[in-house]
This record gives sequence, structure tokens and C-alpha cells, in this order.
Amino acid sequence: MDRHFFEELNSLKSKLLEMGTTAEEMLNITVKALKDNNTALFDTIDQDEFKLNRLQVEIDEFCMKLIALHQPTAIDLRFLLGVIKINSELERIGDHTTNIRETIARILKQKQPGTSIDMTVMAELACNMFKESLYAFINMDTDKAKSILFRDDQVDQLRHKAINELVESMTKDPAKADTSVSMLLIANNIEKIADHATNIAEDVIFVAQGKDVRHHFEDPLIKNQ
Amino acid sequence: MDRHFFEELNSLKSKLLEMGTTAEEMLNITVKALKDNNTALFDTIDQDEFKLNRLQVEIDEFCMKLIALHQPTAIDLRFLLGVIKINSELERIGDHTTNIRETIARILKQKQPGTSIDMTVMAELACNMFKESLYAFINMDTDKAKSILFRDDQVDQLRHKAINELVESMTKDPAKADTSVSMLLIANNIEKIADHATNIAEDVIFVAQGKDVRHHFEDPLIKNQ
Repeated sequence: MDRHFFEELNSLKSKLLEMGTTAEEMLNITVKALKDNNTALFDTIDQDEFKLNRLQVEIDEFCMKLIALHQPTAIDLRFLLGVIKINSELERIGDHTTNIRETIARILKQKQPGTSIDMTVMAELACNMFKESLYAFINMDTDKAKSILFRDDQVDQLRHKAINELVESMTKDPAKADTSVSMLLIANNIEKIADHATNIAEDVIFVAQGKDVRHHFEDPLIKNQ
Repeated sequence: MDRHFFEELNSLKSKLLEMGTTAEEMLNITVKALKDNNTALFDTIDQDEFKLNRLQVEIDEFCMKLIALHQPTAIDLRFLLGVIKINSELERIGDHTTNIRETIARILKQKQPGTSIDMTVMAELACNMFKESLYAFINMDTDKAKSILFRDDQVDQLRHKAINELVESMTKDPAKADTSVSMLLIANNIEKIADHATNIAEDVIFVAQGKDVRHHFEDPLIKNQ
């Protein structure tokens, strides 16, 4: 690989990492707000979302330029296609985080009565999956990536549990229907963030090993590789 | 462009179209079930989802092979990168359709009491956006693609209206909380399908014109182009 191309790949990786850490900051602020209703940093989320959108367009253009100019094959091509995919996942994580931020702001503004349903365990689980998927990408750590795939089910189960509890709470106390629906929307967005973290982990395995593990990662052959 | 590459691009386009029509069939069955509780074809949705997953992997591999072998630039490269993106949108439309199918099946199985909230207008709107985004892709029709971008807001508004009505219904009649939550989940999935149709429309504009209209499609310069 020529030096110039190598440097450009590194510069692309840094840009994607900047996007990842921006999404991570958004997510940290949101999880904190879920925990203690602290919305002091909510304006940061809006600025960060704007930054994510700008970076998404820049990264896609950068990838396309590198493919057209350097005509990469094998792992370099997989890396560039992987970056395009991860780029899209990161932008969507930003969207879901913004949705959660808006829902929390609405709950607080309308002074909706609280529910006893706690979303922080689920949110922290999804947040950790996302952080580890970024780590797996930076270090091309496929073991770490595989460990993330199997945690998606836990988030799904927590979401199902939360939905059942919310339905029960609404049935018993219809005055809390509004808050319960808000919490349900938050649960859905958290679950989607875990989905996107899982997709990033799948992309890391694809880039590193050339293996497409989507739709059959429960296969024991993949599990043990 | 050499003849062999031209034929391969056509073959790729057919494969993506097969994926699109499969997702369309799934969506048609779901909208019909929402309208008249007809679940006769629900098994088809499961088979179709399996097919979508298989096609997604095949199409990504095909694109990567073509980029590595033919080292395309300009519109050919944009077409291949666009196909990779649309491929992912189609698979996710399949996922959301499967979620709706499962929710309808659960409502009917549990014999949940009905609500007066009608989702069919919203579902048909999203379904038409998707069909037109496929048409825009096949014909590289950027005018059609642009017309889709501006309809996403309508679906968002219908979803907001549905959520407000569902909260009101739950507050008045808590026994219907379960059905109302199910309908809310359906509304969320329909809105996501409209989002993915919008993404496909944006990808069509990117492939045809080399313009990235994400995050600023409301720009009058784009609107009037």
C-alpha cells in the first residue's frame, strides 16, 4: 500500500472515531438525564447531532474518493465499505439519542407524573454495547465484536419486560398513560441503539475477517471462531 | 464500459429489484391485515423475510466483487455504493414489516379489544412512498425521488396524531391499554418504513446526480432542481 493511501486511511479512521465519540457523548448525556433528570447538557446534544450529520456526509464522500482514486481490493476495500456502513449506524444512533432527549424534555416540561419503570439498566447496557463496538472497530478486535452480538437479546428482553410493566401500570393508573407512553418510546429508542451497536460489531467482523455474520451469528461455527 | 460489466450491473439491478418486490409483497400483506384482520398470508411474510436476508448478503457480496474487479468510478461507483445502501434499507423495511406482522398476530391471538384508531391511512401512505422509491430507483427518476422526501413529514404527523389518540383512549378506557400499546408499536414501525423509503429516495438522487441531499433536503436549491 502506498504511503499516501495509508495516511488517508488513518485520517478516515480518525474522522469516524470523532463521529463515534460524538455519538458516545450524546448517549452519555442522555443516560445521565434518564438517571437523575439532569438536562443541563441537553443543548450539547443538539449541537452534536448537527456535527454528526455533517461528519456523515464528509465521511461518505471521503470513502468514495478513496475507492475511486486508489481502487482498493481485499481488506482495504472491506475497510472502506465497512466505514460507509458504520457511518450510517452512528448517524442513526445520534437520531435515536435525539429522540430520547426530546421525550425526556417533554416529560419534564409537561410535569408528567413519574412511573416506577426504570430504564437506566437497559440504557446502560445499550450504551456499553455501543462503546465496546467502537473499541472493537478501533482495534479490529473480533472477539470483542462477537461478544456484543450475543448481548442484543438481553436488551430485547429488558424492552419486553418494560413494555409489560408499562401496560400493567397504565391499566392500574390511567392518569399515567402519557408518561407510560413516553417511557415506551424511550425503551424503543434504546433497543434500536443496541441494534445499531450490534450492526457495528457485525461490520467489524466483516472488515477483519471477510465474513458476513448477519442473519446467522447464532451459528455455533461462528460462535466458536 | 465493457459489455461484461454492463451485464453484471443489470444482473445486480435485477437482484435488488427482486429484493424490493419481496419487501413490497410483505408490506402489501401487512397493510391488508391491518385493514381487515386477514392473516391468511402471514406465513408468506416469514418466508419472504428469510429470502430478504439471503438476498441482502448476496447483493453486498456481488457489489464488492464488482468494485474489486472493475474498479468503477463516477456514476458506476455511485450506483454500486447506492445499491449497498438501498440493500440495507430494504432489509430493514422487511424487519419492520415482520414486527407489524407479529404485533397483529398477538392482538388477534390474545383477542385484545379493538380500538377506534385506524392505522390504514398511515400504512398506505408509507407503502406508497416505498413503492415509488423503488420506481424512482428502477427508472433513476430524481423528480419522483424528490417528491417522496417531502411526504415523510405527513407520516410523522399521522404518527403523532395516532399517539395522542392512543393516550386519550388509554386514559378513558384502561382495559384497552394492551391493544393501544400494540397499535403504538405498529405506528412506530410504519413511520420507520416511511423513513427507509425516504432514505432510498435520497440514495436515488445521490446515484443519479452525485448530490448528497441528506440533512438538507428542505434547502430550496435542492427543492427546485
